[in-house]
Amino acid sequence: MEVSKAKVCIIVGIPGVGKTTVLNLVEEYAGEEGFKIKIVNFGDKMFEEARGRGLVQHRDQIRRLPLTVQHELQEVAAKKIRWEAENSRDVHVFMVDTHSLVHTSTGYWPGLPDHVIKGLKPHTIFVVEARPEEVYGRRLRDSKIRIRGDEREIGEIREFMELARIAALSSAVLVGASVYIVKNFEGRAGDVAREIVKVLKML
Amino acid sequence: MEVSKAKVCIIVGIPGVGKTTVLNLVEEYAGEEGFKIKIVNFGDKMFEEARGRGLVQHRDQIRRLPLTVQHELQEVAAKKIRWEAENSRDVHVFMVDTHSLVHTSTGYWPGLPDHVIKGLKPHTIFVVEARPEEVYGRRLRDSKIRIRGDEREIGEIREFMELARIAALSSAVLVGASVYIVKNFEGRAGDVAREIVKVLKML
Amino acid sequence: MEVSKAKVCIIVGIPGVGKTTVLNLVEEYAGEEGFKIKIVNFGDKMFEEARGRGLVQHRDQIRRLPLTVQHELQEVAAKKIRWEAENSRDVHVFMVDTHSLVHTSTGYWPGLPDHVIKGLKPHTIFVVEARPEEVYGRRLRDSKIRIRGDEREIGEIREFMELARIAALSSAVLVGASVYIVKNFEGRAGDVAREIVKVLKML
Repeated sequence: MEVSKAKVCIIVGIPGVGKTTVLNLVEEYAGEEGFKIKIVNFGDKMFEEARGRGLVQHRDQIRRLPLTVQHELQEVAAKKIRWEAENSRDVHVFMVDTHSLVHTSTGYWPGLPDHVIKGLKPHTIFVVEARPEEVYGRRLRDSKIRIRGDEREIGEIREFMELARIAALSSAVLVGASVYIVKNFEGRAGDVAREIVKVLKML
Repeated sequence: MEVSKAKVCIIVGIPGVGKTTVLNLVEEYAGEEGFKIKIVNFGDKMFEEARGRGLVQHRDQIRRLPLTVQHELQEVAAKKIRWEAENSRDVHVFMVDTHSLVHTSTGYWPGLPDHVIKGLKPHTIFVVEARPEEVYGRRLRDSKIRIRGDEREIGEIREFMELARIAALSSAVLVGASVYIVKNFEGRAGDVAREIVKVLKML
Repeated sequence: MEVSKAKVCIIVGIPGVGKTTVLNLVEEYAGEEGFKIKIVNFGDKMFEEARGRGLVQHRDQIRRLPLTVQHELQEVAAKKIRWEAENSRDVHVFMVDTHSLVHTSTGYWPGLPDHVIKGLKPHTIFVVEARPEEVYGRRLRDSKIRIRGDEREIGEIREFMELARIAALSSAVLVGASVYIVKNFEGRAGDVAREIVKVLKML
């Protein structure tokens, strides 16, 4: 099949839902079917842009830049990804790996605000979710995150996941994209990846 | 009373909440009070536009058009409805019958994305809701929808209804419209219709 | 420290969550640390604008103006606040006291629609929440609001608070602002105020 222009899709999920595992399987399964997916990490694109302008040397310096500068970098990164997708050859889908909401000490930050989502013009936003207890368990195993008490932490994860879903929907309304929610419950990563590939081929 | 320009309102609700029943009663009750409501089906307007351009012959062909073409048709349909409302005579309210969210195999699609809601510039969005169990029952009676297991289905209806409400609110934020939620519980269609007419007369 | 340009932040919360108490403490605590906060009431700014144009004499006449006129007043008020913040001297933060959602007999009205939030361009939206039962209790003590039955009222407060939070997030997505949720549970106003001051100093 000749492909002249790739569709842009987005995949989001809060830390610990298993997004990376799913994404690797999506790439693998799609490849087996001759369906070409290019995964683009939005944070990498932003960093590339910021470093190219001499604004930062390390990735974690980005969030210390003035907010208007961060917004400018986000907008340019989004537009460049869109441009690459429109000018790609032999790629079916550009899958943008990012967040619909980022939780920091200064609050919940939208990852797909107006100036980003309108630059990307995605077809579909995939939202990866899991049970709050599973997310908590994965975070315990995967890192040295300081835990302040189990129940509070799980309640906070639930709130974060609900808000991240709502943020994804709000962003989708801005561009008429669809929101596809997948439940990555323990042991389901393979099924979830196959489901995503199936949807991608339908778009 | 002389009326020179109709207000635009929108009514949404997921399949099975009883929106059509309510809407027919709204028209009837309003008529009894000399308050003229014109009901416009958004999907009909889109189809009319698509057929006029020779893009489709049947309604279900619309969703197979490229996404950008569908968006263009939506935008034009919205602007035409707005124009008709502004140039209507002796109509108090143009009530646009549509969805805030559509559930398909490729995800949840916003029915009132930025380019539609800004074309319609509505005053108020009425959201018709019902108990998930009632919606499930109505769907069982009214059609041949394949059911995959009661509990799962009811949970999915609850999720869909919650997201449809959030999508309506997101759309309302884009234009400063109000969201009015009505609970169409079993046997309440008449009360709900009277409530909507009362609100319409207050706008 | 010399300050040439103030950041704009917003604080919202449904009636009865204790926003005013928190806001007074925020101003007091910040002042003690030499951090200057200017509190601006959005409704006052709108009224000032409406009265200056000879449209109203009393504040409650605003909501009887045509919707397009109200939107125009909102937009101008937002832009003036932004302008004042950008041209202020020796103020660290302009804190705009308003609502993300207003509940009236014609539905839920977004307090930070597109044309307002894009005028204000806030850095962070603080959402003050409380337990629905506490809100109910405060409303009982503080005013003569007619109560239609405890349980129904508390359920309605819970719905309103959930929707107000979602509306704040929807507005934040439009400008890439963060949403910071604080839980003003009984007796916690001081802690909440200190938390807000801490966040303001981090922005």
